Amino acid sequence: MTTADRQIRLKPLTKTAFAEFGDVLAVKAKPDQIINQGMCGRHHNLAKLAFAGGGQAGISVFDATPRALPYTLDMMERHPKGSQAFVPMHDASFLVIVAADENGQPGQPQAFLTAPHTGINIHKNIWHGVLTPLSAPGLFAVIDRIGNDTNLEEHWFDEAYTVIA
Amino acid sequence: MTTADRQIRLKPLTKTAFAEFGDVLAVKAKPDQIINQGMCGRHHNLAKLAFAGGGQAGISVFDATPRALPYTLDMMERHPKGSQAFVPMHDASFLVIVAADENGQPGQPQAFLTAPHTGINIHKNIWHGVLTPLSAPGLFAVIDRIGNDTNLEEHWFDEAYTVIA
Repeated sequence: MTTADRQIRLKPLTKTAFAEFGDVLAVKAKPDQIINQGMCGRHHNLAKLAFAGGGQAGISVFDATPRALPYTLDMMERHPKGSQAFVPMHDASFLVIVAADENGQPGQPQAFLTAPHTGINIHKNIWHGVLTPLSAPGLFAVIDRIGNDTNLEEHWFDEAYTVIA
Repeated sequence: MTTADRQIRLKPLTKTAFAEFGDVLAVKAKPDQIINQGMCGRHHNLAKLAFAGGGQAGISVFDATPRALPYTLDMMERHPKGSQAFVPMHDASFLVIVAADENGQPGQPQAFLTAPHTGINIHKNIWHGVLTPLSAPGLFAVIDRIGNDTNLEEHWFDEAYTVIA
């Protein structure tokens, strides 16, 4: 059984709350540009991308098994050499877990629920949970660093957290 | 009224048919890697990206007005300095129009219908139609070149094409 201090309550994802961890990829109140003879709004350059140490930008597709709430969080990871963006290729919301660093390990995790039609970009070296769709299909385009060297650090918690609605 | 030689019949998007124009961003028969303790398949590095002439990779969101078939194609464009990927942030298929170059202008256009949960990456300098969702919402994450210089060439047809189902 999870003690109260290991419970994390889900919050709606907002740009402000997420700003210290990454970017919200969604339409803004107003597009930056109208293109294609008035038929398309361009919400321009929303993500702070990083592909350090000789890596390059790439696009992959992740196919993740849907999870359910309450969700057990026993591990977080970070990528010291690159940002990682997740774009849902479907209509559904998904779960995003992030934490600030505290002396080389994740501090108190925070859990966010995205609005539909919303992606995220996790900044370089920010602690985050693995990709956690809450419904099928768990398909996402992922824009991250392509390189053959190590770019993953994992932290396993002694006592797991539980994310609740 | 469109004459028969200006009609373009829609075809299903396949990797083979699209290979000369760009990449199909979708799961393959088998993932390249299984990650996240067995919970996620990574279909790795599916797109040939290009951000030439001092530009950089960026992620934007496009919000395009849905179109209907028959669709009138009166213009195609290309980006000489960069690739452009379109990732649907929804469940729906969309229309993709591309053409090989013939003496500096688009040759015979081809029209493809994507499968759901499928994105595309149009290679650098390939002629293509503007973003054409067929249903709402017309929301797409776009991974393309960010730069302040000109990276757009348009070609307007003397006689429009019509894309039919």
